[in-house]
Amino acid sequence: MSDGFTFTLLGTDGVARRGEFHTPHGIVQTPAFMPVGTQGTVKAALHRDLEELGAEIILGNTYHLFLRPGDELIARRGGLHRFIGWTRPMLTDSGGFQIFSLAERRVIREEGAEFQSHLDGSRHTLTPERAVDIQSRLGADVAMVLDECMAYPATREAAAASMERSVRWAKRSRERLDALRASPPAHVPAANPAQAQFGIVQGGVFQDLRNDSADATVAIGFEGYAIGGLSVGEPTEVMYSITEETARRLPVERPRYLMGAGTPEDLVECVARGIDMFDCVMPTRNARNGQLFTSQGRINIKNARYAEDDRPLDPECGCYTCRHHSRAYLRHLYLAAEMTAGALNTLHNLSFYLDTMRRIRDAIAFGTFDNFRQGFLRSASRLSLDS
Amino acid sequence: MSDGFTFTLLGTDGVARRGEFHTPHGIVQTPAFMPVGTQGTVKAALHRDLEELGAEIILGNTYHLFLRPGDELIARRGGLHRFIGWTRPMLTDSGGFQIFSLAERRVIREEGAEFQSHLDGSRHTLTPERAVDIQSRLGADVAMVLDECMAYPATREAAAASMERSVRWAKRSRERLDALRASPPAHVPAANPAQAQFGIVQGGVFQDLRNDSADATVAIGFEGYAIGGLSVGEPTEVMYSITEETARRLPVERPRYLMGAGTPEDLVECVARGIDMFDCVMPTRNARNGQLFTSQGRINIKNARYAEDDRPLDPECGCYTCRHHSRAYLRHLYLAAEMTAGALNTLHNLSFYLDTMRRIRDAIAFGTFDNFRQGFLRSASRLSLDS
Repeated sequence: MSDGFTFTLLGTDGVARRGEFHTPHGIVQTPAFMPVGTQGTVKAALHRDLEELGAEIILGNTYHLFLRPGDELIARRGGLHRFIGWTRPMLTDSGGFQIFSLAERRVIREEGAEFQSHLDGSRHTLTPERAVDIQSRLGADVAMVLDECMAYPATREAAAASMERSVRWAKRSRERLDALRASPPAHVPAANPAQAQFGIVQGGVFQDLRNDSADATVAIGFEGYAIGGLSVGEPTEVMYSITEETARRLPVERPRYLMGAGTPEDLVECVARGIDMFDCVMPTRNARNGQLFTSQGRINIKNARYAEDDRPLDPECGCYTCRHHSRAYLRHLYLAAEMTAGALNTLHNLSFYLDTMRRIRDAIAFGTFDNFRQGFLRSASRLSLDS
Repeated sequence: MSDGFTFTLLGTDGVARRGEFHTPHGIVQTPAFMPVGTQGTVKAALHRDLEELGAEIILGNTYHLFLRPGDELIARRGGLHRFIGWTRPMLTDSGGFQIFSLAERRVIREEGAEFQSHLDGSRHTLTPERAVDIQSRLGADVAMVLDECMAYPATREAAAASMERSVRWAKRSRERLDALRASPPAHVPAANPAQAQFGIVQGGVFQDLRNDSADATVAIGFEGYAIGGLSVGEPTEVMYSITEETARRLPVERPRYLMGAGTPEDLVECVARGIDMFDCVMPTRNARNGQLFTSQGRINIKNARYAEDDRPLDPECGCYTCRHHSRAYLRHLYLAAEMTAGALNTLHNLSFYLDTMRRIRDAIAFGTFDNFRQGFLRSASRLSLDS
């Protein structure tokens, strides 16, 4: 196990967990939300904005960074932290999800995935070992194993075969990391020698496959465990159910990361099912599209009803955008296609997400999480103010 | 004259002037550079960034704000300051320059300018009186008179006719403002009753026309005087010469504003010729195009030579971008078309411009402006590091 990564479970409230993990770049309080910094920047947000909002960890996408500017360039520049100037913890995914969703022609074989870049059509192969090497060069605090990401829906047979391959890939990934740790080759510099590695549970919407995947992945042994292949189109109740049963099967003493989720309600509901970590493009992408989360409901800032609305986006929000600007101004900036519309909206949505996580952590610490959860779900925050 | 606007000449060093003007929204140290906030935001910069950079005044474009979201909407929201949440001084132009450069089909008559919106082709008329009314509704601290902006080059006859029309329009503009101040009609709310009004000297590159224009404009009487119709394609030396001779003819006790200039060298050279105020889109537009100003020369961040350059854009710069990020990272963000590229580059270029103005003011105060000027022009700052 990595010396640099430790997870401490600080307390529980029902199934919900309050914890923290230590990394070479600092401590992350859990449950945690990780803003997505695909290309080495969270879109429309400067690092200082993220620090001010209290983001303790961000995510980078290996697929994008591998293609541009390249993991070897980043390694020569001292690793991803130094290259992008972010001093707090980071996690990189393995690239698998983007190969399935972004790359042009892709072929998955037992050895790995062949694909063509969405940028220039260039051909590449990503194997489990190569995903480990690339992430070693990037040097985030947490690396993810390469897994096979299936489309939804899938047959049981397809889901089983895919899950089993993902387990074999996970084993190869861990073996590669162990080899790198024992004797790092010159062409794979370890930008962060204490990098942790998380395994990923697959199995689609079939709970018995999820159970088999969890058991096999835990048997390999990782610093943490993720649940992948959800939030891909399945009904919310199925996502919640699979999350609940799978999280229960994972070791208590390791962090649990639900990949790619979700709405604010998803965060609360999946913390209630034992999840410690989340990432999602929703707050940032929706912000750039003028879709804003507030304690009173969701706002589509394009709506004509906001043209002369002097109120802040959310009267309960203390972010820079809400302290200084009206809905009327934000609507104007959006319609005028100003970059500051994206920046101000992103600040707000990330503030809403990170503030929700703070409230979740406080509620667990005070033993009032169930009250918080019921109140949050009763509130209008999931509803649209524009319908 | 406006009670809310006073200009104080604090000192001179040769022809260069150190001063300050007081407005209802605060004090502006001169010589001053005004970042351009065309649509109610400086592109890619949040207000807090501008405040941190020390921007004491920004410029808004009447043409854009009149078309979207509309001056009447802004007036209902309490004026431009309140609408956009900017608390420091602001100046609005008259819309004339944009009608000449942006609008579709336009016809200039003695009464005013008819034009079609570049946004939707809608037809509008802007008269000198209407430009006063619109800017009264916006309520910036300084409003500009509507002038006729000629293309360069122009014949002497055309320049003379145009200049004479601009003088007649200036007189109508002042009469309209006097009427509004004496008895504001309900449909023209004064968002800022102490708004100042500047006249504009025209006359192309013909110094005798410039002299006539200056004399006639000063005879009407304004809180300040601008030199318009330069930086439109004429040779730099012609621009400097016209600026020098025209500034000399303007009253010592009023601020002098050279519209639309320029490069950093232009700022230094025109301060040396008696100018107090500048505005230009160059720092912000160039930033978004990856063109950066540094004390060592100009940088095109796209250039491959910066791919692995760990240095800041400018080792002598203390801006957020230079304190935290390398050229290699900024190049990556630019090539990846990330919005944060525009934001970080804009922070830097505005910092370079505003810092240049601070150094100019200090040099005048210390009586060392000529030394500063010679050093600035000898430095490599005007040269490209990429050629």
